[in-house]
Amino acid sequence: MGSGMARSLLRAGLVTYGFDVEPARVDALVGCGGRQGDAALDVLVVVVVNAVQTEAALFGADGFADRLEPGAVVVACATVAPDVARAFEARLAERGVLYLDAPISGGSVRAAEGTLAIMASGTPAAFVAAEPALDAMATSVFRLGDAAGPASAMKMVNQLLAGVHIAAAAEAITFGLKHGVDAATTIEVISQCAGTSWMFENRGPHIRDGDYTPRSAVDIFVKDLGIVCDMAREARFSAPLAAIAWQQFLAASGAGLGGEDDAAVAKIYARNAGLLLPGDDGV
Amino acid sequence: MGSGMARSLLRAGLVTYGFDVEPARVDALVGCGGRQGDAALDVLVVVVVNAVQTEAALFGADGFADRLEPGAVVVACATVAPDVARAFEARLAERGVLYLDAPISGGSVRAAEGTLAIMASGTPAAFVAAEPALDAMATSVFRLGDAAGPASAMKMVNQLLAGVHIAAAAEAITFGLKHGVDAATTIEVISQCAGTSWMFENRGPHIRDGDYTPRSAVDIFVKDLGIVCDMAREARFSAPLAAIAWQQFLAASGAGLGGEDDAAVAKIYARNAGLLLPGDDGV
Repeated sequence: MGSGMARSLLRAGLVTYGFDVEPARVDALVGCGGRQGDAALDVLVVVVVNAVQTEAALFGADGFADRLEPGAVVVACATVAPDVARAFEARLAERGVLYLDAPISGGSVRAAEGTLAIMASGTPAAFVAAEPALDAMATSVFRLGDAAGPASAMKMVNQLLAGVHIAAAAEAITFGLKHGVDAATTIEVISQCAGTSWMFENRGPHIRDGDYTPRSAVDIFVKDLGIVCDMAREARFSAPLAAIAWQQFLAASGAGLGGEDDAAVAKIYARNAGLLLPGDDGV
Repeated sequence: MGSGMARSLLRAGLVTYGFDVEPARVDALVGCGGRQGDAALDVLVVVVVNAVQTEAALFGADGFADRLEPGAVVVACATVAPDVARAFEARLAERGVLYLDAPISGGSVRAAEGTLAIMASGTPAAFVAAEPALDAMATSVFRLGDAAGPASAMKMVNQLLAGVHIAAAAEAITFGLKHGVDAATTIEVISQCAGTSWMFENRGPHIRDGDYTPRSAVDIFVKDLGIVCDMAREARFSAPLAAIAWQQFLAASGAGLGGEDDAAVAKIYARNAGLLLPGDDGV
Protein backbone atom coordinates (compact mmCIF):
# COMPACT_ATOMS: atom_id res chain seq x y z
CA MET A 1 0.00 0.00 0.00
CA GLY A 2 2.69 2.48 1.05
CA SER A 3 4.73 2.11 -2.13
CA GLY A 4 1.72 2.81 -4.31
CA MET A 5 0.69 5.79 -2.21
CA ALA A 6 4.23 7.23 -2.37
CA ARG A 7 4.16 6.89 -6.16
CA SER A 8 0.82 8.72 -6.25
CA LEU A 9 2.42 11.55 -4.25
CA LEU A 10 5.30 11.70 -6.74
CA ARG A 11 2.93 11.73 -9.70
CA ALA A 12 1.18 14.72 -8.16
CA GLY A 13 4.50 16.59 -8.19
CA LEU A 14 5.09 16.47 -4.45
CA VAL A 15 8.64 16.07 -3.11
CA THR A 16 8.44 12.61 -1.56
CA TYR A 17 10.80 10.85 0.84
CA GLY A 18 10.50 7.12 1.38
CA PHE A 19 11.14 5.22 4.61
CA ASP A 20 10.74 1.47 5.03
CA VAL A 21 12.20 -1.32 7.13
CA GLU A 22 12.92 -2.95 3.76
CA PRO A 23 15.64 -0.84 2.05
CA ALA A 24 14.79 -2.28 -1.39
CA ARG A 25 11.40 -0.55 -1.25
CA VAL A 26 13.05 2.81 -0.65
CA ASP A 27 15.52 2.14 -3.49
CA ALA A 28 12.61 1.38 -5.81
CA LEU A 29 10.95 4.66 -4.88
CA VAL A 30 14.18 6.56 -5.45
CA GLY A 31 14.33 4.93 -8.88
CA CYS A 32 10.97 6.59 -9.62
CA GLY A 33 12.07 10.06 -8.51
CA GLY A 34 11.60 9.72 -4.76
CA ARG A 35 14.17 10.72 -2.16
CA GLN A 36 15.65 9.20 0.96
CA GLY A 37 17.40 10.40 4.06
CA ASP A 38 16.67 13.09 6.64
CA ALA A 39 14.48 16.01 5.71
CA ALA A 40 12.07 18.49 7.28
CA LEU A 41 8.74 16.88 6.49
CA ASP A 42 5.51 18.83 6.13
CA VAL A 43 3.39 15.71 5.95
CA LEU A 44 4.24 12.28 7.31
CA VAL A 45 2.04 9.52 5.89
CA VAL A 46 2.31 6.44 8.11
CA VAL A 47 1.20 3.31 6.28
CA VAL A 48 1.80 0.37 8.60
CA VAL A 49 -0.23 -2.59 9.81
CA ASN A 50 -1.38 -1.76 13.33
CA ALA A 51 -1.18 0.36 16.48
CA VAL A 52 2.11 -1.17 17.63
CA GLN A 53 3.85 -0.32 14.35
CA THR A 54 2.33 3.18 14.30
CA GLU A 55 3.60 3.68 17.86
CA ALA A 56 7.07 2.51 16.84
CA ALA A 57 7.14 4.70 13.72
CA LEU A 58 6.15 7.78 15.71
CA PHE A 59 7.55 7.33 19.20
CA GLY A 60 10.01 4.42 19.04
CA ALA A 61 13.81 4.67 18.93
CA ASP A 62 14.52 6.88 15.91
CA GLY A 63 10.76 7.58 15.67
CA PHE A 64 9.51 10.46 13.55
CA ALA A 65 7.83 12.45 16.34
CA ASP A 66 11.20 13.94 17.31
CA ARG A 67 11.95 14.89 13.71
CA LEU A 68 8.72 16.78 12.94
CA GLU A 69 8.46 20.54 13.39
CA PRO A 70 5.38 22.14 14.96
CA GLY A 71 2.74 22.57 12.26
CA ALA A 72 3.66 19.37 10.45
CA VAL A 73 0.90 16.77 10.14
CA VAL A 74 0.91 13.01 10.63
CA VAL A 75 -1.53 11.18 8.34
CA ALA A 76 -2.04 7.89 10.17
CA CYS A 77 -3.45 5.16 7.91
CA ALA A 78 -3.20 1.99 10.00
CA THR A 79 -6.38 0.31 11.22
CA VAL A 80 -6.51 1.05 14.95
CA ALA A 81 -9.18 1.44 17.63
CA PRO A 82 -10.61 4.99 17.94
CA ASP A 83 -9.13 5.31 21.46
CA VAL A 84 -5.67 4.60 20.08
CA ALA A 85 -6.10 7.28 17.41
CA ARG A 86 -7.21 9.79 20.06
CA ALA A 87 -4.14 8.98 22.17
CA PHE A 88 -1.74 9.49 19.25
CA GLU A 89 -3.43 12.81 18.44
CA ALA A 90 -3.01 13.98 22.04
CA ARG A 91 0.65 12.97 22.31
CA LEU A 92 1.54 14.75 19.07
CA ALA A 93 -0.49 17.82 20.06
CA GLU A 94 1.87 18.25 23.03
CA ARG A 95 4.60 18.86 20.46
CA GLY A 96 2.50 21.11 18.26
CA VAL A 97 2.29 18.39 15.61
CA LEU A 98 -1.06 17.88 13.88
CA TYR A 99 -2.68 14.45 13.47
CA LEU A 100 -5.14 13.18 10.90
CA ASP A 101 -6.92 9.95 11.76
CA ALA A 102 -6.96 8.59 8.21
CA PRO A 103 -7.57 4.88 7.68
CA ILE A 104 -7.78 3.77 4.07
CA SER A 105 -9.86 1.37 1.99
CA GLY A 106 -9.29 0.12 -1.51
CA GLY A 107 -6.29 -2.21 -1.63
CA SER A 108 -2.91 -1.98 -3.29
CA VAL A 109 -4.17 -1.48 -6.85
CA ARG A 110 -6.13 1.63 -5.96
CA ALA A 111 -3.24 2.81 -3.76
CA ALA A 112 -0.96 2.76 -6.81
CA GLU A 113 -3.57 4.55 -8.94
CA GLY A 114 -4.11 7.27 -6.35
CA THR A 115 -7.79 6.31 -6.15
CA LEU A 116 -8.10 5.20 -2.53
CA ALA A 117 -11.00 5.98 -0.25
CA ILE A 118 -9.75 7.72 2.91
CA MET A 119 -11.91 7.96 6.03
CA ALA A 120 -10.55 11.04 7.77
CA SER A 121 -11.13 12.97 10.95
CA GLY A 122 -9.00 15.63 12.63
CA THR A 123 -8.76 19.33 13.30
CA PRO A 124 -9.40 21.76 10.45
CA ALA A 125 -5.69 22.65 10.62
CA ALA A 126 -4.76 18.99 10.19
CA PHE A 127 -6.99 18.75 7.11
CA VAL A 128 -5.47 21.89 5.58
CA ALA A 129 -1.93 20.65 6.17
CA ALA A 130 -2.70 17.18 4.78
CA GLU A 131 -4.78 18.27 1.81
CA PRO A 132 -2.16 18.09 -0.99
CA ALA A 133 -1.24 14.56 0.06
CA LEU A 134 -4.86 13.45 0.43
CA ASP A 135 -5.73 14.80 -3.01
CA ALA A 136 -2.81 12.92 -4.53
CA MET A 137 -3.63 9.59 -2.91
CA ALA A 138 -7.42 9.40 -2.91
CA THR A 139 -10.48 10.08 -5.01
CA SER A 140 -12.80 9.93 -1.99
CA VAL A 141 -11.88 11.69 1.24
CA PHE A 142 -14.69 11.38 3.78
CA ARG A 143 -14.53 14.13 6.43
CA LEU A 144 -15.95 12.41 9.47
CA GLY A 145 -15.24 14.80 12.33
CA ASP A 146 -12.97 17.46 13.75
CA ALA A 147 -10.89 15.22 15.99
CA ALA A 148 -9.29 11.79 15.82
CA GLY A 149 -11.68 8.90 16.52
CA PRO A 150 -14.66 8.90 14.14
CA ALA A 151 -12.53 7.93 11.13
CA SER A 152 -11.11 4.92 12.96
CA ALA A 153 -14.61 4.05 14.19
CA MET A 154 -15.85 4.06 10.59
CA LYS A 155 -12.90 1.93 9.51
CA MET A 156 -13.84 -0.62 12.16
CA VAL A 157 -17.43 -0.61 10.85
CA ASN A 158 -15.96 -1.37 7.42
CA GLN A 159 -13.70 -4.11 8.81
CA LEU A 160 -16.61 -5.70 10.68
CA LEU A 161 -18.49 -5.97 7.38
CA ALA A 162 -15.45 -6.97 5.34
CA GLY A 163 -14.49 -9.75 7.74
CA VAL A 164 -18.03 -11.10 8.01
CA HIS A 165 -18.45 -10.94 4.23
CA ILE A 166 -15.23 -12.84 3.50
CA ALA A 167 -16.20 -15.59 5.93
CA ALA A 168 -19.77 -15.57 4.55
CA ALA A 169 -18.42 -15.94 1.00
CA ALA A 170 -16.36 -18.91 2.14
CA GLU A 171 -19.34 -20.38 4.01
CA ALA A 172 -21.67 -19.96 1.03
CA ILE A 173 -19.28 -21.27 -1.62
CA THR A 174 -18.47 -24.37 0.43
CA PHE A 175 -22.17 -24.84 1.34
CA GLY A 176 -22.83 -24.84 -2.40
CA LEU A 177 -20.01 -27.35 -3.03
CA LYS A 178 -21.49 -29.64 -0.38
CA HIS A 179 -24.81 -29.47 -2.25
CA GLY A 180 -23.36 -30.16 -5.68
CA VAL A 181 -22.87 -26.63 -7.04
CA ASP A 182 -19.32 -25.88 -8.20
CA ALA A 183 -17.50 -22.75 -7.05
CA ALA A 184 -17.20 -21.16 -10.49
CA THR A 185 -20.96 -21.40 -11.09
CA THR A 186 -21.73 -20.03 -7.65
CA ILE A 187 -19.52 -17.01 -8.28
CA GLU A 188 -20.99 -16.39 -11.73
CA VAL A 189 -24.61 -16.58 -10.55
CA ILE A 190 -24.43 -14.94 -7.13
CA SER A 191 -22.46 -11.97 -8.49
CA GLN A 192 -25.66 -11.08 -10.38
CA CYS A 193 -28.04 -11.74 -7.49
CA ALA A 194 -28.98 -10.02 -4.23
CA GLY A 195 -26.55 -12.20 -2.25
CA THR A 196 -23.48 -10.52 -3.65
CA SER A 197 -20.95 -8.34 -1.84
CA TRP A 198 -17.76 -6.53 -2.76
CA MET A 199 -15.80 -9.17 -0.84
CA PHE A 200 -17.72 -12.06 -2.44
CA GLU A 201 -16.77 -10.78 -5.90
CA ASN A 202 -13.19 -10.00 -4.90
CA ARG A 203 -12.28 -13.02 -2.76
CA GLY A 204 -14.60 -15.64 -4.30
CA PRO A 205 -12.33 -16.00 -7.36
CA HIS A 206 -9.36 -16.74 -5.07
CA ILE A 207 -11.29 -19.77 -3.77
CA ARG A 208 -12.45 -20.73 -7.28
CA ASP A 209 -8.86 -20.58 -8.54
CA GLY A 210 -7.28 -22.19 -5.46
CA ASP A 211 -5.02 -19.13 -5.27
CA TYR A 212 -4.16 -18.15 -1.70
CA THR A 213 -1.25 -15.82 -2.51
CA PRO A 214 -1.78 -13.23 0.22
CA ARG A 215 -3.21 -9.97 -1.14
CA SER A 216 -4.45 -9.49 2.42
CA ALA A 217 -3.68 -12.20 4.95
CA VAL A 218 -5.85 -14.21 7.35
CA ASP A 219 -3.94 -12.65 10.26
CA ILE A 220 -5.08 -9.16 9.24
CA PHE A 221 -8.65 -10.18 10.04
CA VAL A 222 -7.56 -11.98 13.19
CA LYS A 223 -6.29 -8.53 14.21
CA ASP A 224 -9.11 -6.36 12.85
CA LEU A 225 -12.05 -8.47 14.01
CA GLY A 226 -10.20 -8.71 17.33
CA ILE A 227 -10.30 -4.90 17.56
CA VAL A 228 -14.00 -4.94 16.60
CA CYS A 229 -14.76 -7.50 19.32
CA ASP A 230 -12.69 -5.58 21.89
CA MET A 231 -14.60 -2.40 21.05
CA ALA A 232 -17.88 -4.30 21.22
CA ARG A 233 -17.04 -5.77 24.63
CA GLU A 234 -15.96 -2.38 25.96
CA ALA A 235 -19.22 -0.77 24.77
CA ARG A 236 -21.42 -3.72 25.85
CA PHE A 237 -22.44 -4.17 22.22
CA SER A 238 -23.45 -7.69 21.19
CA ALA A 239 -21.85 -8.39 17.77
CA PRO A 240 -22.45 -12.09 17.17
CA LEU A 241 -21.62 -12.18 13.46
CA ALA A 242 -18.32 -10.39 13.97
CA ALA A 243 -17.54 -12.73 16.87
CA ILE A 244 -18.24 -15.85 14.80
CA ALA A 245 -16.32 -14.57 11.78
CA TRP A 246 -13.40 -13.83 14.11
CA GLN A 247 -13.49 -17.42 15.39
CA GLN A 248 -13.29 -18.72 11.81
CA PHE A 249 -10.23 -16.55 11.08
CA LEU A 250 -8.71 -17.61 14.41
CA ALA A 251 -9.25 -21.25 13.41
CA ALA A 252 -7.60 -20.58 10.06
CA SER A 253 -4.63 -18.92 11.76
CA GLY A 254 -4.41 -21.71 14.35
CA ALA A 255 -4.38 -24.26 11.54
CA GLY A 256 -1.25 -22.61 10.14
CA LEU A 257 -2.92 -20.49 7.46
CA GLY A 258 -2.33 -17.08 9.07
CA GLY A 259 0.00 -15.89 6.30
CA GLU A 260 -2.23 -17.06 3.45
CA ASP A 261 -4.79 -14.89 1.68
CA ASP A 262 -7.81 -14.24 3.89
CA ALA A 263 -9.93 -16.32 1.48
CA ALA A 264 -8.13 -19.32 3.02
CA VAL A 265 -10.78 -19.20 5.74
CA ALA A 266 -12.63 -21.37 3.18
CA LYS A 267 -10.19 -24.18 4.04
CA ILE A 268 -11.62 -24.34 7.56
CA TYR A 269 -15.13 -24.72 6.18
CA ALA A 270 -13.97 -27.33 3.69
CA ARG A 271 -12.04 -29.34 6.25
CA ASN A 272 -14.98 -29.28 8.65
CA ALA A 273 -17.25 -30.61 5.92
CA GLY A 274 -14.95 -33.21 4.37
CA LEU A 275 -14.75 -31.21 1.15
CA LEU A 276 -11.91 -30.61 -1.28
CA LEU A 277 -11.56 -27.08 -2.62
CA PRO A 278 -10.39 -26.22 -6.13
CA GLY A 279 -6.61 -26.66 -6.27
CA ASP A 280 -6.56 -27.97 -2.71
CA ASP A 281 -5.76 -31.53 -1.81
CA GLY A 282 -7.10 -31.57 1.72
CA VAL A 283 -4.40 -29.54 3.56
CA MET B 1 -43.69 -10.60 -7.41
CA GLY B 2 -46.35 -12.63 -9.22
CA SER B 3 -48.30 -9.59 -10.42
CA GLY B 4 -45.21 -8.02 -11.94
CA MET B 5 -44.19 -11.28 -13.59
CA ALA B 6 -47.71 -11.72 -15.06
CA ARG B 7 -47.51 -8.21 -16.50
CA SER B 8 -44.13 -9.05 -18.04
CA LEU B 9 -45.73 -12.07 -19.71
CA LEU B 10 -48.53 -9.88 -21.08
CA ARG B 11 -46.05 -7.31 -22.37
CA ALA B 12 -44.30 -10.08 -24.27
CA GLY B 13 -47.59 -10.85 -26.05
CA LEU B 14 -48.29 -14.12 -24.26
CA VAL B 15 -51.89 -15.05 -23.40
CA THR B 16 -51.81 -14.86 -19.62
CA TYR B 17 -54.28 -16.14 -17.02
CA GLY B 18 -54.07 -14.92 -13.43
CA PHE B 19 -54.86 -16.92 -10.28
CA ASP B 20 -54.53 -15.58 -6.75
CA VAL B 21 -56.10 -16.14 -3.36
CA GLU B 22 -56.78 -12.40 -3.47
CA PRO B 23 -59.38 -11.77 -6.22
CA ALA B 24 -58.46 -8.08 -6.48
CA ARG B 25 -55.04 -9.05 -7.84
CA VAL B 26 -56.63 -11.09 -10.61
CA ASP B 27 -59.02 -8.23 -11.39
CA ALA B 28 -56.06 -5.85 -11.68
CA LEU B 29 -54.36 -8.21 -14.11
CA VAL B 30 -57.54 -8.52 -16.18
CA GLY B 31 -57.61 -4.72 -16.31
CA CYS B 32 -54.21 -4.89 -18.01
CA GLY B 33 -55.30 -7.43 -20.61
CA GLY B 34 -54.94 -10.64 -18.60
CA ARG B 35 -57.55 -13.36 -18.38
CA GLN B 36 -59.14 -15.40 -15.63
CA GLY B 37 -60.97 -18.70 -15.33
CA ASP B 38 -60.25 -22.22 -16.54
CA ALA B 39 -57.99 -22.80 -19.50
CA ALA B 40 -55.59 -25.36 -20.92
CA LEU B 41 -52.25 -23.96 -19.75
CA ASP B 42 -48.96 -24.60 -21.55
CA VAL B 43 -46.91 -23.04 -18.79
CA LEU B 44 -47.89 -22.66 -15.14
CA VAL B 45 -45.69 -20.18 -13.26
CA VAL B 46 -46.10 -20.74 -9.51
CA VAL B 47 -44.98 -17.68 -7.52
CA VAL B 48 -45.73 -18.39 -3.88
CA VAL B 49 -43.79 -18.16 -0.64
CA ASN B 50 -42.73 -21.66 0.28
CA ALA B 51 -42.98 -25.43 -0.17
CA VAL B 52 -46.34 -25.70 1.61
CA GLN B 53 -47.95 -23.15 -0.69
CA THR B 54 -46.37 -24.75 -3.77
CA GLU B 55 -47.73 -28.12 -2.64
CA ALA B 56 -51.19 -26.61 -2.18
CA ALA B 57 -51.11 -24.85 -5.55
CA LEU B 58 -50.12 -28.04 -7.35
CA PHE B 59 -51.62 -30.91 -5.39
CA GLY B 60 -54.15 -29.41 -2.96
CA ALA B 61 -57.92 -29.36 -3.37
CA ASP B 62 -58.50 -27.67 -6.73
CA GLY B 63 -54.72 -27.83 -7.34
CA PHE B 64 -53.34 -27.29 -10.81
CA ALA B 65 -51.72 -30.70 -11.25
CA ASP B 66 -55.07 -32.21 -12.24
CA ARG B 67 -55.70 -29.44 -14.75
CA LEU B 68 -52.42 -29.67 -16.69
CA GLU B 69 -52.10 -31.79 -19.83
CA PRO B 70 -49.03 -33.97 -20.42
CA GLY B 71 -46.29 -31.81 -21.96
CA ALA B 72 -47.25 -28.72 -19.99
CA VAL B 73 -44.52 -27.29 -17.73
CA VAL B 74 -44.64 -26.01 -14.16
CA VAL B 75 -42.16 -23.17 -13.51
CA ALA B 76 -41.78 -23.30 -9.72
CA CYS B 77 -40.36 -20.07 -8.28
CA ALA B 78 -40.73 -20.45 -4.50
CA THR B 79 -37.63 -20.83 -2.36
CA VAL B 80 -37.58 -24.48 -1.31
CA ALA B 81 -35.01 -27.09 -0.35
CA PRO B 82 -33.52 -29.01 -3.30
CA ASP B 83 -35.07 -32.26 -2.03
CA VAL B 84 -38.51 -30.66 -2.14
CA ALA B 85 -37.95 -29.53 -5.73
CA ARG B 86 -36.86 -33.04 -6.71
CA ALA B 87 -39.99 -34.50 -5.12
CA PHE B 88 -42.30 -32.11 -7.01
CA GLU B 89 -40.53 -32.94 -10.26
CA ALA B 90 -41.01 -36.67 -9.67
CA ARG B 91 -44.70 -36.37 -8.76
CA LEU B 92 -45.47 -34.30 -11.86
CA ALA B 93 -43.41 -36.61 -14.07
CA GLU B 94 -45.84 -39.41 -13.17
CA ARG B 95 -48.49 -37.37 -14.97
CA GLY B 96 -46.25 -36.48 -17.92
CA VAL B 97 -46.04 -32.88 -16.71
CA LEU B 98 -42.66 -31.17 -16.94
CA TYR B 99 -41.09 -29.26 -14.03
CA LEU B 100 -38.59 -26.43 -13.99
CA ASP B 101 -36.90 -25.74 -10.66
CA ALA B 102 -36.79 -21.95 -11.08
CA PRO B 103 -36.24 -19.80 -8.00
CA ILE B 104 -35.95 -16.08 -8.66
CA SER B 105 -33.86 -13.18 -7.42
CA GLY B 106 -34.36 -9.48 -7.92
CA GLY B 107 -37.38 -8.25 -5.99
CA SER B 108 -40.72 -6.83 -7.07
CA VAL B 109 -39.32 -3.91 -9.10
CA ARG B 110 -37.33 -6.18 -11.38
CA ALA B 111 -40.27 -8.61 -11.52
CA ALA B 112 -42.46 -5.83 -12.94
CA GLU B 113 -39.74 -4.81 -15.42
CA GLY B 114 -39.22 -8.37 -16.66
CA THR B 115 -35.57 -8.17 -15.59
CA LEU B 116 -35.40 -10.89 -12.94
CA ALA B 117 -32.56 -13.33 -12.49
CA ILE B 118 -33.86 -16.90 -12.62
CA MET B 119 -31.81 -19.83 -11.35
CA ALA B 120 -33.14 -22.76 -13.33
CA SER B 121 -32.61 -26.49 -13.58
CA GLY B 122 -34.71 -29.13 -15.24
CA THR B 123 -34.90 -31.44 -18.22
CA PRO B 124 -34.12 -30.02 -21.68
CA ALA B 125 -37.82 -30.54 -22.52
CA ALA B 126 -38.82 -28.44 -19.50
CA PHE B 127 -36.50 -25.64 -20.61
CA VAL B 128 -37.91 -25.70 -24.16
CA ALA B 129 -41.50 -25.58 -22.91
CA ALA B 130 -40.77 -22.77 -20.43
CA GLU B 131 -38.57 -20.66 -22.70
CA PRO B 132 -41.12 -18.05 -23.90
CA ALA B 133 -42.15 -17.35 -20.31
CA LEU B 134 -38.56 -17.24 -19.03
CA ASP B 135 -37.55 -14.82 -21.77
CA ALA B 136 -40.46 -12.54 -20.90
CA MET B 137 -39.76 -12.47 -17.15
CA ALA B 138 -35.98 -12.46 -16.86
CA THR B 139 -32.85 -10.96 -18.33
CA SER B 140 -30.62 -13.62 -16.74
CA VAL B 141 -31.61 -17.27 -16.86
CA PHE B 142 -28.89 -19.43 -15.33
CA ARG B 143 -29.06 -23.03 -16.57
CA LEU B 144 -27.77 -24.98 -13.61
CA GLY B 145 -28.50 -28.59 -14.44
CA ASP B 146 -30.76 -31.05 -16.23
CA ALA B 147 -32.95 -31.97 -13.29
CA ALA B 148 -34.63 -30.22 -10.37
CA GLY B 149 -32.32 -29.56 -7.39
CA PRO B 150 -29.28 -27.51 -8.40
CA ALA B 151 -31.33 -24.35 -8.97
CA SER B 152 -32.86 -24.56 -5.52
CA ALA B 153 -29.43 -25.32 -4.05
CA MET B 154 -28.09 -22.14 -5.67
CA LYS B 155 -31.04 -20.16 -4.37
CA MET B 156 -30.24 -21.37 -0.86
CA VAL B 157 -26.59 -20.27 -1.35
CA ASN B 158 -27.99 -16.85 -2.29
CA GLN B 159 -30.34 -16.78 0.70
CA LEU B 160 -27.52 -17.77 3.07
CA LEU B 161 -25.55 -14.76 1.86
CA ALA B 162 -28.54 -12.42 1.72
CA GLY B 163 -29.63 -13.26 5.27
CA VAL B 164 -26.12 -12.96 6.70
CA HIS B 165 -25.58 -9.68 4.84
CA ILE B 166 -28.83 -8.10 6.11
CA ALA B 167 -27.97 -9.02 9.69
CA ALA B 168 -24.36 -7.87 9.15
CA ALA B 169 -25.60 -4.52 7.81
CA ALA B 170 -27.77 -4.13 10.92
CA GLU B 171 -24.87 -5.18 13.17
CA ALA B 172 -22.43 -2.77 11.50
CA ILE B 173 -24.76 0.23 11.38
CA THR B 174 -25.69 -0.16 15.05
CA PHE B 175 -22.04 -0.82 16.00
CA GLY B 176 -21.25 2.50 14.31
CA LEU B 177 -24.09 4.24 16.17
CA LYS B 178 -22.75 2.92 19.45
CA HIS B 179 -19.37 4.43 18.55
CA GLY B 180 -20.72 7.83 17.55
CA VAL B 181 -21.10 7.42 13.78
CA ASP B 182 -24.59 8.18 12.48
CA ALA B 183 -26.40 5.78 10.15
CA ALA B 184 -26.56 8.11 7.15
CA THR B 185 -22.78 8.68 7.22
CA THR B 186 -22.10 4.96 7.60
CA ILE B 187 -24.23 4.20 4.56
CA GLU B 188 -22.64 6.95 2.48
CA VAL B 189 -19.07 5.91 3.31
CA ILE B 190 -19.33 2.13 3.41
CA SER B 191 -21.19 2.02 0.07
CA GLN B 192 -17.92 3.23 -1.48
CA CYS B 193 -15.65 0.91 0.52
CA ALA B 194 -14.79 -2.78 0.49
CA GLY B 195 -17.30 -3.51 3.26
CA THR B 196 -20.31 -2.97 1.03
CA SER B 197 -22.84 -5.53 -0.16
CA TRP B 198 -25.97 -5.48 -2.29
CA MET B 199 -28.04 -5.93 0.86
CA PHE B 200 -26.13 -3.23 2.77
CA GLU B 201 -26.93 -0.72 0.01
CA ASN B 202 -30.54 -1.89 -0.33
CA ARG B 203 -31.57 -2.40 3.32
CA GLY B 204 -29.25 0.13 5.00
CA PRO B 205 -31.43 3.05 3.85
CA HIS B 206 -34.48 1.40 5.47
CA ILE B 207 -32.65 1.61 8.82
CA ARG B 208 -31.40 5.14 8.11
CA ASP B 209 -34.96 6.27 7.28
CA GLY B 210 -36.64 4.30 10.06
CA ASP B 211 -38.85 2.77 7.36
CA TYR B 212 -39.81 -0.83 8.09
CA THR B 213 -42.64 -1.12 5.56
CA PRO B 214 -42.15 -4.74 4.50
CA ARG B 215 -40.60 -5.04 1.05
CA SER B 216 -39.48 -8.46 2.28
CA ALA B 217 -40.38 -9.45 5.82
CA VAL B 218 -38.33 -10.72 8.77
CA ASP B 219 -40.30 -13.98 8.67
CA ILE B 220 -39.07 -14.71 5.13
CA PHE B 221 -35.55 -15.01 6.50
CA VAL B 222 -36.77 -16.96 9.51
CA LYS B 223 -38.00 -19.42 6.88
CA ASP B 224 -35.10 -19.27 4.40
CA LEU B 225 -32.23 -19.38 6.91
CA GLY B 226 -34.18 -22.20 8.58
CA ILE B 227 -34.02 -24.14 5.30
CA VAL B 228 -30.29 -23.34 5.02
CA CYS B 229 -29.67 -24.59 8.55
CA ASP B 230 -31.77 -27.73 7.96
CA MET B 231 -29.78 -28.46 4.80
CA ALA B 232 -26.53 -27.82 6.69
CA ARG B 233 -27.51 -30.16 9.52
CA GLU B 234 -28.56 -32.86 7.08
CA ALA B 235 -25.25 -32.59 5.22
CA ARG B 236 -23.15 -32.24 8.40
CA PHE B 237 -22.02 -28.83 7.17
CA SER B 238 -21.05 -26.32 9.86
CA ALA B 239 -22.56 -22.94 8.86
CA PRO B 240 -22.00 -20.74 11.91
CA LEU B 241 -22.73 -17.37 10.26
CA ALA B 242 -26.02 -18.59 8.79
CA ALA B 243 -26.92 -20.08 12.17
CA ILE B 244 -26.23 -16.82 14.03
CA ALA B 245 -28.02 -14.67 11.45
CA TRP B 246 -30.99 -17.05 11.77
CA GLN B 247 -31.02 -16.54 15.54
CA GLN B 248 -31.13 -12.76 15.05
CA PHE B 249 -34.12 -13.05 12.70
CA LEU B 250 -35.77 -15.49 15.13
CA ALA B 251 -35.27 -12.95 17.92
CA ALA B 252 -36.81 -10.25 15.73
CA SER B 253 -39.79 -12.45 14.94
CA GLY B 254 -40.14 -13.48 18.58
CA ALA B 255 -40.13 -9.81 19.57
CA GLY B 256 -43.17 -9.27 17.39
CA LEU B 257 -41.38 -7.88 14.32
CA GLY B 258 -41.96 -10.86 11.99
CA GLY B 259 -44.16 -8.90 9.61
CA GLU B 260 -41.88 -5.87 9.41
CA ASP B 261 -39.23 -5.34 6.75
CA ASP B 262 -36.27 -7.66 7.28
CA ALA B 263 -34.11 -4.62 8.09
CA ALA B 264 -36.02 -4.57 11.42
CA VAL B 265 -33.45 -7.10 12.64
CA ALA B 266 -31.56 -3.87 13.46
CA LYS B 267 -34.07 -3.30 16.27
CA ILE B 268 -32.77 -6.38 18.06
CA TYR B 269 -29.21 -5.05 17.89
CA ALA B 270 -30.35 -1.61 19.02
CA ARG B 271 -32.39 -2.92 21.94
CA ASN B 272 -29.52 -5.15 23.06
CA ALA B 273 -27.19 -2.15 23.07
CA GLY B 274 -29.49 0.45 24.61
CA LEU B 275 -29.56 2.41 21.35
CA LEU B 276 -32.32 4.34 19.62
CA LEU B 277 -32.56 3.91 15.85
CA PRO B 278 -33.61 6.67 13.45
CA GLY B 279 -37.38 7.06 13.64
CA ASP B 280 -37.58 4.48 16.40
CA ASP B 281 -38.46 5.30 19.97
CA GLY B 282 -37.27 2.16 21.64
CA VAL B 283 -40.02 -0.30 20.62
